[in-house]
Amino acid sequence: METIALQTAAREELVDITELVAGAVARAGLTDGAALVYVPHTTAGVTINENADPAVPRDVMMALARLVPQTLPFTHAEGNADAHVKASLMGSSVTVPVRSGALQLGTWQGVFFAEFDGPRRRRVLVQALAGAAR
Amino acid sequence: METIALQTAAREELVDITELVAGAVARAGLTDGAALVYVPHTTAGVTINENADPAVPRDVMMALARLVPQTLPFTHAEGNADAHVKASLMGSSVTVPVRSGALQLGTWQGVFFAEFDGPRRRRVLVQALAGAAR
Amino acid sequence: METIALQTAAREELVDITELVAGAVARAGLTDGAALVYVPHTTAGVTINENADPAVPRDVMMALARLVPQTLPFTHAEGNADAHVKASLMGSSVTVPVRSGALQLGTWQGVFFAEFDGPRRRRVLVQALAGAAR
Repeated sequence: METIALQTAAREELVDITELVAGAVARAGLTDGAALVYVPHTTAGVTINENADPAVPRDVMMALARLVPQTLPFTHAEGNADAHVKASLMGSSVTVPVRSGALQLGTWQGVFFAEFDGPRRRRVLVQALAGAAR
Repeated sequence: METIALQTAAREELVDITELVAGAVARAGLTDGAALVYVPHTTAGVTINENADPAVPRDVMMALARLVPQTLPFTHAEGNADAHVKASLMGSSVTVPVRSGALQLGTWQGVFFAEFDGPRRRRVLVQALAGAAR
Repeated sequence: METIALQTAAREELVDITELVAGAVARAGLTDGAALVYVPHTTAGVTINENADPAVPRDVMMALARLVPQTLPFTHAEGNADAHVKASLMGSSVTVPVRSGALQLGTWQGVFFAEFDGPRRRRVLVQALAGAAR
C-alpha cells in the first residue's frame, strides 16, 4: 500500500491524481488485478471523470454545490456539513482494473481527488488488489 | 479480464447487464472473491438496483434528470455536462462478492449500465478479484 | 465471506457498523488487501462518513431526503421509489484497505449501513480481498 500526500488549494476543488495513482501501481509491481484508490477523510472523496476539458470538473463541482447548498438547515456545528454530504455522494474510493501493469482507464478518464472542505493537507491510499487469474 | 460490448438505444437508459456479468465471472473460473464491473466512459456509469419492476430503473433516471437538469449554467461546450455529473453520482464501478462461483446479488438486485449520453457503443470491463481465503 | 445481520429501527437511518466490519475482517485472518462491504438490498446502501458527531449522519440523511423527496412523480407502485434512488446515490458497497490486519479507516471515518425503507431485517456481506504483495 502506498500513501499519496496532497495539499489542496481551495475549499472545493477536483485535483487530477491520475499520474500519482499510476506511479503507485507501477511501484507495487501489480500486473493483473485492480487499484483501490481510497480517501481516509470525511469531507473529501474521489471520483473518475473527464480530464481533457477542465470545464468538466468545474461543472461537476458547480452541480454538487447546487445539489447540497451550505444553507441547508444542518445541525453539525462546524459549518462543513455540506462537505460531508458531498463526500458520501462521490464516495470514499474508486477501483480501477489493471492489466499487464496498466490502469485500464478509458480514453477520457482521469482520477480526481474531490476536496469539499479545503484547503487542507490530505492523503490518498493506493492498495493493489490481486486478480484471480485462471 | 473480459470486455462486454454494448450498443445503447437512447440518451438516458439503464441497461440490465446482470447476465452478461455473470457469464464473464463464470468464464473467469472465479470461485471466491469479487467481480469488479468497470465502465471506462465519462458520460456513463454503473449501478445496482431492482430489476424486477421496470418502474424502478425508470424512476431512478427520472430523479437523476431532476437532480441535474441539462439547463444548469454549465461551461463544458459539448452539451452533455449533465451526463458527466450523473456519471460521477452513479460511479464508474460496482464490486459484487462471488462465493462458490456465484455472484452474491440480493434477490431483487441487478447490475445496470447507466447511459447518460447515448445512444452510443459502450464497453464494460469485468475483472475477477481474488478472495483472501484463510 | 461473512454475513452481518441487522435489524433497522426507522424508515431512514444510518447505522454504524464499523465494529462489526472490523470483527469480520479479523475473523477472516486478512492481513493485507481490502474489505468489501456489500449490501444485497435495493432500498438500502452503505457509506463512509464521520462517526464522531451524530449530527453528521443526521445531516446526510436530511440532505438526501431533500434531494429525493417522496413526492416526486414516481411510477414504482410500492411507495418506496425514493429509497431505490437514494440506494443508487450511496451505492451498494464500500471497499476499505486493510494493512497488517487493520482497516485503514481515517481518524473520523466510520462505515454506515444506510437504511432508506425500514424498519427491516437486513444483511451485509463482508468479503476479504487479497492484496497483491510484491
